[in-house]
Amino acid sequence: MSKQIRAYADGDKLTVKVLLNTVTKGVTNKGAPYLSFVFQDGSGTIDAKYWNVSKEALDAFKPGMLVEVNGDVLCHNHQLQFRVQNMKEISQEGIDLRDYVKASELSENQLKFEIMKYVSDIQDTTIAKLVREMLKQREEKFFVYPAAQKNHHDFVGGLATHVLGMLKLADTLAASYPLLNRDLLIGGVILHDLGKLDELSGAIVTEYTMEGKLLGHISLMQAEISDTAKRLGLEGENVTLLRHMVLSHHGVYEYGSPVLPMIPEAEMLYLIDNIDARMSTLKKALEPIEPGNFTPRIFALENRAFYKHK
Amino acid sequence: MSKQIRAYADGDKLTVKVLLNTVTKGVTNKGAPYLSFVFQDGSGTIDAKYWNVSKEALDAFKPGMLVEVNGDVLCHNHQLQFRVQNMKEISQEGIDLRDYVKASELSENQLKFEIMKYVSDIQDTTIAKLVREMLKQREEKFFVYPAAQKNHHDFVGGLATHVLGMLKLADTLAASYPLLNRDLLIGGVILHDLGKLDELSGAIVTEYTMEGKLLGHISLMQAEISDTAKRLGLEGENVTLLRHMVLSHHGVYEYGSPVLPMIPEAEMLYLIDNIDARMSTLKKALEPIEPGNFTPRIFALENRAFYKHK
Amino acid sequence: MSKQIRAYADGDKLTVKVLLNTVTKGVTNKGAPYLSFVFQDGSGTIDAKYWNVSKEALDAFKPGMLVEVNGDVLCHNHQLQFRVQNMKEISQEGIDLRDYVKASELSENQLKFEIMKYVSDIQDTTIAKLVREMLKQREEKFFVYPAAQKNHHDFVGGLATHVLGMLKLADTLAASYPLLNRDLLIGGVILHDLGKLDELSGAIVTEYTMEGKLLGHISLMQAEISDTAKRLGLEGENVTLLRHMVLSHHGVYEYGSPVLPMIPEAEMLYLIDNIDARMSTLKKALEPIEPGNFTPRIFALENRAFYKHK
Amino acid sequence: MSKQIRAYADGDKLTVKVLLNTVTKGVTNKGAPYLSFVFQDGSGTIDAKYWNVSKEALDAFKPGMLVEVNGDVLCHNHQLQFRVQNMKEISQEGIDLRDYVKASELSENQLKFEIMKYVSDIQDTTIAKLVREMLKQREEKFFVYPAAQKNHHDFVGGLATHVLGMLKLADTLAASYPLLNRDLLIGGVILHDLGKLDELSGAIVTEYTMEGKLLGHISLMQAEISDTAKRLGLEGENVTLLRHMVLSHHGVYEYGSPVLPMIPEAEMLYLIDNIDARMSTLKKALEPIEPGNFTPRIFALENRAFYKHK
Amino acid sequence: MSKQIRAYADGDKLTVKVLLNTVTKGVTNKGAPYLSFVFQDGSGTIDAKYWNVSKEALDAFKPGMLVEVNGDVLCHNHQLQFRVQNMKEISQEGIDLRDYVKASELSENQLKFEIMKYVSDIQDTTIAKLVREMLKQREEKFFVYPAAQKNHHDFVGGLATHVLGMLKLADTLAASYPLLNRDLLIGGVILHDLGKLDELSGAIVTEYTMEGKLLGHISLMQAEISDTAKRLGLEGENVTLLRHMVLSHHGVYEYGSPVLPMIPEAEMLYLIDNIDARMSTLKKALEPIEPGNFTPRIFALENRAFYKHK
Amino acid sequence: MSKQIRAYADGDKLTVKVLLNTVTKGVTNKGAPYLSFVFQDGSGTIDAKYWNVSKEALDAFKPGMLVEVNGDVLCHNHQLQFRVQNMKEISQEGIDLRDYVKASELSENQLKFEIMKYVSDIQDTTIAKLVREMLKQREEKFFVYPAAQKNHHDFVGGLATHVLGMLKLADTLAASYPLLNRDLLIGGVILHDLGKLDELSGAIVTEYTMEGKLLGHISLMQAEISDTAKRLGLEGENVTLLRHMVLSHHGVYEYGSPVLPMIPEAEMLYLIDNIDARMSTLKKALEPIEPGNFTPRIFALENRAFYKHK
Repeated sequence: MSKQIRAYADGDKLTVKVLLNTVTKGVTNKGAPYLSFVFQDGSGTIDAKYWNVSKEALDAFKPGMLVEVNGDVLCHNHQLQFRVQNMKEISQEGIDLRDYVKASELSENQLKFEIMKYVSDIQDTTIAKLVREMLKQREEKFFVYPAAQKNHHDFVGGLATHVLGMLKLADTLAASYPLLNRDLLIGGVILHDLGKLDELSGAIVTEYTMEGKLLGHISLMQAEISDTAKRLGLEGENVTLLRHMVLSHHGVYEYGSPVLPMIPEAEMLYLIDNIDARMSTLKKALEPIEPGNFTPRIFALENRAFYKHK
Repeated sequence: MSKQIRAYADGDKLTVKVLLNTVTKGVTNKGAPYLSFVFQDGSGTIDAKYWNVSKEALDAFKPGMLVEVNGDVLCHNHQLQFRVQNMKEISQEGIDLRDYVKASELSENQLKFEIMKYVSDIQDTTIAKLVREMLKQREEKFFVYPAAQKNHHDFVGGLATHVLGMLKLADTLAASYPLLNRDLLIGGVILHDLGKLDELSGAIVTEYTMEGKLLGHISLMQAEISDTAKRLGLEGENVTLLRHMVLSHHGVYEYGSPVLPMIPEAEMLYLIDNIDARMSTLKKALEPIEPGNFTPRIFALENRAFYKHK
Repeated sequence: MSKQIRAYADGDKLTVKVLLNTVTKGVTNKGAPYLSFVFQDGSGTIDAKYWNVSKEALDAFKPGMLVEVNGDVLCHNHQLQFRVQNMKEISQEGIDLRDYVKASELSENQLKFEIMKYVSDIQDTTIAKLVREMLKQREEKFFVYPAAQKNHHDFVGGLATHVLGMLKLADTLAASYPLLNRDLLIGGVILHDLGKLDELSGAIVTEYTMEGKLLGHISLMQAEISDTAKRLGLEGENVTLLRHMVLSHHGVYEYGSPVLPMIPEAEMLYLIDNIDARMSTLKKALEPIEPGNFTPRIFALENRAFYKHK
Repeated sequence: MSKQIRAYADGDKLTVKVLLNTVTKGVTNKGAPYLSFVFQDGSGTIDAKYWNVSKEALDAFKPGMLVEVNGDVLCHNHQLQFRVQNMKEISQEGIDLRDYVKASELSENQLKFEIMKYVSDIQDTTIAKLVREMLKQREEKFFVYPAAQKNHHDFVGGLATHVLGMLKLADTLAASYPLLNRDLLIGGVILHDLGKLDELSGAIVTEYTMEGKLLGHISLMQAEISDTAKRLGLEGENVTLLRHMVLSHHGVYEYGSPVLPMIPEAEMLYLIDNIDARMSTLKKALEPIEPGNFTPRIFALENRAFYKHK
Repeated sequence: MSKQIRAYADGDKLTVKVLLNTVTKGVTNKGAPYLSFVFQDGSGTIDAKYWNVSKEALDAFKPGMLVEVNGDVLCHNHQLQFRVQNMKEISQEGIDLRDYVKASELSENQLKFEIMKYVSDIQDTTIAKLVREMLKQREEKFFVYPAAQKNHHDFVGGLATHVLGMLKLADTLAASYPLLNRDLLIGGVILHDLGKLDELSGAIVTEYTMEGKLLGHISLMQAEISDTAKRLGLEGENVTLLRHMVLSHHGVYEYGSPVLPMIPEAEMLYLIDNIDARMSTLKKALEPIEPGNFTPRIFALENRAFYKHK
Repeated sequence: MSKQIRAYADGDKLTVKVLLNTVTKGVTNKGAPYLSFVFQDGSGTIDAKYWNVSKEALDAFKPGMLVEVNGDVLCHNHQLQFRVQNMKEISQEGIDLRDYVKASELSENQLKFEIMKYVSDIQDTTIAKLVREMLKQREEKFFVYPAAQKNHHDFVGGLATHVLGMLKLADTLAASYPLLNRDLLIGGVILHDLGKLDELSGAIVTEYTMEGKLLGHISLMQAEISDTAKRLGLEGENVTLLRHMVLSHHGVYEYGSPVLPMIPEAEMLYLIDNIDARMSTLKKALEPIEPGNFTPRIFALENRAFYKHK
């Protein structure tokens, strides 16, 4: 593995493999085109400039590509910057992308194993069939996508990690509160965010797709469940209830739920989604803080600063 | 036609045909079961009681039934009330339901003719095919359903009347503002409220269905468009844009739109839906008012009272 | 035990023991004073009137008294009403008040046993001492008071039942999320609502005290913790953190928290308080509903109606 | 015509005529005074600095002046900047200001002709007299002022262009909805924004006047209508209704309407003002966007980004 | 003076003089017309019915009339009601209306004397001339009108009482805070609510006029100040500032101020208007409460209940 | 006294005494540590850098220290900056800190004298004892602390200056409105912000303490009053009422009051706190403005810009 970005120093001359996080074209005051990048690997990111870029190279690079690049590191405005001499795309085959991005603490196999155990516990055949089919169609993406572009669980495998965290809570809560139907709750947890697989452009260097922006992951998934249930010939109330749970899981209109929770399982889905997201956000925010100090204000937590106790 | 409800007087002994608007079971202090109704015909409504109801009769009547009833009219608590002696369901066949309910000023045929002219004007083949298919599947309901259970356009044919009013505005506005794509706007107007055909239980004595409450007409229709487009093999941006228009046409999250308008046609759809609904509400509210006076506060118009000028 | 209120019938002549839930003085049109009551026992409530009441009797009765009363049951405005002939207070000694009020499904001893197990698990000595002392001072009230005058857990033992429900969740969640300090969370759960013991006037026929209204249970308890810690010579961050958790546990300013949660345990305390209250409210609201139907709108759940699935 | 600003290049030495958009005094670190400008012509704007400015020159220049300036163009912080050598005011006489500013696509005469047609259609003599007089007093300004300092219709002739757009909609809508009084609606559209002629300091380089800020254009115009009606001896309800329409046309309190619409024409005035402003804003925002992309977030449209379809 | 309403008893047969507070027409179930009234005198109000009313009498009575009426008092639904036998209007000449309505504790002369002292203290000639002229035109109404139809200062002379209370505060505050211009503040206090003289229909049995509803007292007065200043040839900033103070004195948009306070005197006018109104409301609410108890919730004070201390 | 900061010029070589307002550690691109400061004296502030700082010096300096420093002044990015050569702490003994910070226009003795006059006027012995004891415990801090870290009264003696301003208003208002209990109002004014003495870290270079952030000054003080009253054996309603006044004096939940004002004195405390704070903020904002101009938008005054009249 080439030198990690976090280890770069002023004056380094390097040949390294990095992932292109962003690619932007610019023009100098003298009219010469150039390219700006953010390079990324598992250790961090760095800004880069490709001056004197050739005409062919100008359109050759896109976010998400893996490249081999040589050049030098310099200090510009108190920040390190990589000045590109040469750069070429390299194949992603045989490469473990987790070397280039932040990833879940759990491996893909662990996530699969743990989540599928909960699936196999579902007793209701309608829910079981629907959940299995939905997951089967999305197997490749489900265990690698992040849960969001930024914010909580924004790493490879983040979505499945988030779902697994919620399944554990669902398990306990279904036991504590008998008015909850366990199968519905488990089913709802697994399906609730699958729409993000269509809404986000990829597991790495994620962006929102045009469909994602215009329709939203909630509506995308609801239509998919309806479609899949028809295709499988599944009928009955539970299909409607699962669609309802997906639609209502943001809990309030302002966050894009067109209906609010109207069954206990939908209410609980919203509550545990919230708990797992908040704990993930807090963990990330508190990690770099010294005990006895406050975090900066955290936008996703109503702009509060949190105290790390001693 | 039997005597109209508005003409009933204290002491009348009558045999009449009426529509059952509501049916409620009760028990007297002495434990005897009875039925309460609201009777309805084209002239108005009246409360009714069926004391001493037989066991069979107790479960025989449901909202939406047409019945022949005989009994007498008396005055209870300053209000007329119908006391039922006998009552039986009669067939709705051959009966023009518009005798029993408020209806659009336009006939079903007029509505059909006018709206289909706009459909036949659509140039874009994807939009045209999709709109035609969606209407074809819902032809029977579309031209008789109301636009809402109460509020604006709450009468037989109300939905189509509302759509026709909007189509006229869409026509002018598409001409005034060249940035609007006429086909998308016309298509969106026609599709935007079709979900109400699933959300409401019927053209008469409408109620919200369980599906309607848990999913909402916006999400119901969006899934249907997605499904129909797949079935017809229709692809491309315009299908997504029509789904977006249906999803966003309430304009704000609080009214159940999971996404907000993000194309000019969606913004305009929201605006003219609003104009037509407001004018319909105002018309209904101002009609019974003497010039120089104010209406009562109108909930759907931000609780304002309107002045009827001289 | 005397005849239960739910069993009363029109025409009954009875001598019974009931609890006075409310007592109101009135004057008839002719100027004669009388008393109105709500009688209560474990089976329900009934309105009562004491006409022709003597001067002495007029001021003799107060909410919360246990009385023996004789009189008859009649039907007034379609509702049963008790007409008092004679009425006298009886001693509450030796009487199990749980016969006269709704009570927790768990006995006082069970609640005590279960909750004290969690207390004895606390490792941090400051937290342990503080929690033990606070509970010791309030032992008599803590296991019988309700959690609120109405709404969730509004029954004898309701507060302890609510705390126990939360402790179980706290247990699981502290295990799931290592960033949570278990002792703080357990301590905060136990202390968070103790102020209600001062805010509410009693375990039965509860009212808000003047202090309760003007200061609120949150501020009452915070001052008590501060005072108790000083008295016990307890110092250090954990006392401040527990005070913070009590102050912030309503989670938003509008519900009377003067500061918002700023440590993970305070955030979690707010979240699980919310979950347990919502599940309790939902349980109560769904119990009397037939499957396939909706509850009335529930004020404490943002005015939503919930569907009871089949 | 001198070289257009959009055509300036690094190193140019130029003598040009430009409009002063802003004028700001500054002091260098060494204490020498200088002037900063934004120069403007029909093609765009450029920052300028006048170093070594003489004492007399320091106070000689104000926003809105036309100047002849010579100097050179250089590149500072990646942006072109004009360095002034000499600068003098020139007379605006005989100069077509539309060479120096953005202007309506319609000429002043076209705007006048089209709008006066609508005026001459007004049947009600009170409304007709009032509208004619109000326009006559403001003829010079009305056809050149913008509709706002920035946002929609922010160009020479913008106000009249906006009014004309609304008159066309008013025409159609008065025909569609018979409950609308056409004369009131047309009159209201013409009068609604006339207060901006007092609120804004000029047709070019507009600023809000002290009166404009402290009173607002809505209140300024309302007082003027009252005054003019008294002077013309006009009486009756329609004067009050027009004052009401001006006061209420922002539709909500937060945007400075002290009363909300209470007649159908006031409601419609608010709605079509909104439509025309939104379409103008959208047009401006979408123009520079490539199909298939989103605009930046648009503040005036609730901060939404709009998609430009293919 | 005839028997006072508060002294009426069931069974009384009376001939009395009362003020008509409200007049409403009704129709019995049998179709006979009748009149409902609220009678009022200085001691209180009572509902009245005039059955078997003649055709002429039906349209003869209006709110605000003084009538001589004979009939009897009976008890209906636990409330006293006056049953009219005969009723005729009597002249208001020579009658002191303060016998029939609640009135200020200060006499008209006291109010005049005290307020005019403040007027004569104004140093600035523009403000002095304007205030004197405005008061002169409204002298008859100003010292008798209430400050509102209900809520604070809702009695004869209420407006002047409110203004006097505010003038006293203004006096002290102008002394405490030198940044306040005393003349502006005094002038603003006197003018701020004069528009209510146009907005309310009379000093007694007040209603909002059509102009009052459609324009609001704030805008009515602002136009009047503008008009009066023109007529008197008054110019300069102070006229604009007084108009600004009138427009902004409700302090927030939601209460009908089209601009918010932007000079210190406007800010202070809003604050002391608020203080005097709140103290008046509180005084009225606390008067009938026993010490140690709470008032009912007071709508005008954010729905809070206030405690009356011992 | 050394040269004042406001008098520094580019090129100065100086030895001066300044207060350290902030201290921040940094690392150069080459990895060398340095210190950044804000220096402060009574005339203003300046940024400073201490390059080549020794290891010992690195941890020697903290905000609030008084230092003697020598170095030179240079111009960096158009702003003056102090480059430190040597720096050492000096004792604060015998030094009048008011030379280094902004201070009240009133001396400590004047503040003490004026405020204690109001204290000695309190008739109620419970209130008098409580207020005297609370002040006695905090005498040293009370007359020097600011009222806030920034915003209104942010200077030495600011808190006492604010309290004195409010006491004067309280005096007049208690006289104007007999429903106000003067002793409670005076007592509440003195106690209301004492919690800031715990919430803020010092009279100079103030920061919020951890306790201040997690508990808030309102809750801190309320617990202290409760504690002090217990210690002095004070009982009765007035202690509760003063606690209520402290808790509710922010007037709305969003600003951290857990209960809203429920006695007239609490309402008035909130209103005059508001008046005095607003006048202080306005005074500060208007001072540097030329007559005829507007201030920048003032965040604490709802983001309004104020006009300074001529």
